[in-house]
Order: sequence, then structure tokens, then C-alpha cells
Amino acid sequence: MTLLSENTEADMRHRILVVAERLFREIGYQKTTVADIAKLLQMSPANVYRFFDSKKAIHKGVARHLMAEVEQAAIAIVHAPGPAVQRLRDLLTTVHRMNCERYIGDAKLHEMVAIAMEENWDVCIAHMEFITGTIGEVIVQGVASGEFKVADVPQAASCTCAAMIRFFHPQMIAQSFNKERPTLEDMIDFVLAALGAGRRADAQ
Amino acid sequence: MTLLSENTEADMRHRILVVAERLFREIGYQKTTVADIAKLLQMSPANVYRFFDSKKAIHKGVARHLMAEVEQAAIAIVHAPGPAVQRLRDLLTTVHRMNCERYIGDAKLHEMVAIAMEENWDVCIAHMEFITGTIGEVIVQGVASGEFKVADVPQAASCTCAAMIRFFHPQMIAQSFNKERPTLEDMIDFVLAALGAGRRADAQ
Repeated sequence: MTLLSENTEADMRHRILVVAERLFREIGYQKTTVADIAKLLQMSPANVYRFFDSKKAIHKGVARHLMAEVEQAAIAIVHAPGPAVQRLRDLLTTVHRMNCERYIGDAKLHEMVAIAMEENWDVCIAHMEFITGTIGEVIVQGVASGEFKVADVPQAASCTCAAMIRFFHPQMIAQSFNKERPTLEDMIDFVLAALGAGRRADAQ
Repeated sequence: MTLLSENTEADMRHRILVVAERLFREIGYQKTTVADIAKLLQMSPANVYRFFDSKKAIHKGVARHLMAEVEQAAIAIVHAPGPAVQRLRDLLTTVHRMNCERYIGDAKLHEMVAIAMEENWDVCIAHMEFITGTIGEVIVQGVASGEFKVADVPQAASCTCAAMIRFFHPQMIAQSFNKERPTLEDMIDFVLAALGAGRRADAQ
């Protein structure tokens, strides 16, 4: 019975987040009320508050969900076969592409992200650390295969992530939207050079 | 006589900007009115409007002045003697340090910058292009001296500038304020590696 009720609770939390995300996309985060979310779920606002103690908590849940999708895609690339150089390219491209889709194509979602970055900063930091971790795993693989030449992997991973801010960070993507240079490919080549990729070619 | 009146006009514009910057720092951009600026200069608001057609135009002038100081420091480093590697370190460190002083130490000035980035985006873009240009000049010198190994200098300069966003961009500096990694030194080492500095040591 306990397991059943736990499942029901997880299911309810999930349903609330799905509806909330839909409303945040359709009418915006600011304009969405807990009453709107409850109404669509055909329940009372008091019932929603049984699962999330504030609209901010719902917001945090939606932000986590959006970030978790990017994290899952990143993990899949870490465990994929193939050379580390190519997988690092894939990983950096995927994070950029998914963040563009999420936060740039959708102006209302962008509003939600801007607020997330002010109010749920810990969720954003945890996400960045997760992505930095996946970058570090690919770098470790590349060092093992001789593709990268890196002395301090965590440092190289944090520098890689920082170097990509223009292509990862929702606000920076939005500000750079019409900038021609550098392209994503230029930037990834630059990062790969910093990681020592291509030096083997020099030595040939 | 024409020259004299031009000088007087430039002088008046300068005096207005100095007073405006002081008020923006002391009471904030939003709260400062053109009437406040005029009062401190012991003139009428109408007279201020002879030189700047709006508060926004004054704002733009103040932002330009703050950015010009950084640009002058950057130019001095481009023309200084010494190895390009060391001067690129100095240049990247100086831009970071000056932007920190300007936009982080001073919360009221930070408000002004946030508004500048929304309203006077062209001024910010021109500034970034200028800084990217000075980075490019040092890279050219480093390629000539054999310190850097770069095929496309404008591309390398734009990637260097983008890689440093976490340390250059006022909003990113503010958001990263408590982040331990990467340090400025880590990031500069990473950029130098991407530019091929240190490869000579590998070849020894």
C-alpha cells in the first residue's frame, strides 16, 4: 500500500508539472496561477498545494524536468561508441541545440528560464555541474585513447564548459543570436585545440 | 570662432557626462532625471537637451566613456613590448579586472549596464568588436614571433573573446561571482593552449 501511494504521489507530481509546463509555454510563467493549473487538472488549488508548497516549487520542478532531458541526452553520448573527439563535438552541439530549442524558440519559456536563473539558482548550478561532469567523462576517455592531451581533467572540463557559455547559456544564446562569429563549429574546434586534439596530426 | 564653439560644445558634453556618471553611481540610473543633472551643472534641463536629446543619449555617452577606458588600456597593452603570450595574459586579465571594478563592485553601475545592454546594444557590440580586434592584434604578433600557431586570426580572436565571456561579460561575472572553477588563470591557460602556445615546449 505504501508503494502504491508513493507511486500515486509521484504520478500526481508528474501530472502537475506537465500541465504547469504547458501553461508556462502557452500563457507565460508570470500569468499562470496555481488555480489555472488546478483547474486544468480538475482539482482544487488546495490539492495542488499538497504536492508543491508554492508556485515557485512547481517552477523548480518544471525547470528540473527541462534540464533533465538535456542531461539524459548528454549521458547517452558519454556511453555511445566512437572516438572521443567526435563524441565531444556531439555533446557540445547537442547541449547547444537543445538549449536553443528550449529557451530561444519559445519566448514564454525564455521568461521562465530568466526567472529560474534568479530564483532557482541552485538548480541551474547543479545542471551546469552535471553537464561539466559529462564533458569530463568524455575527456577522460579521450585522454585514455590518446586523442586529448590534458593534465587536469576537472579543470579542462570546467574550462570547456565556460568556453561554451555563449552557446550554452540561455541569456548568452539570446544575446548572440544574430552574431555571425564565432560559429559553433569554430568554437568547438578552438576547444578541441585547447584539449590537445590535432596534435597527433602535427606530429605526423 | 568655429573651432572655439566646437571645443565649448565638446567640453559641455563632457561635463554633462561626468555629472551624469556621478549621479548614476550615487542614486542609480533609473532614479536620476535630466533635471537632476541640470541642477548640479547649474543650468536648465532645456540647456542639457541642447547637447543630448534624451536621457538615453546621456546614458549611451556614459556607457561609451566607461568602455573607452577599457579600450585605451587594451590598446596600451597591444603596443607594449614583451612576448605576445605575456601580453595576451595581461590583456585578458585587464579586461576582466576593469569590468569587475566597473560593473560588480558598484551595484548601481551594474543596473546602468544591464539597461545599456538592452537599450544601447549597438554600443556594447562595438565595444566587444574593439576588444576582439585588440586580441587579434596580439595574436598576429604572437604568430609572427612563433609563439602562437593560428591559421585564421580573426576566427581565433573571436573564439578567444567568446571563451572569456564568463570573465568579460558583466552579467556572467555577476552570476559566476562565487564559482571557484575555472579560475581566470585556468581559463587563460586553456585559451593559450587553443592558440598553440606551449607547443614549442612539446617539440623540444
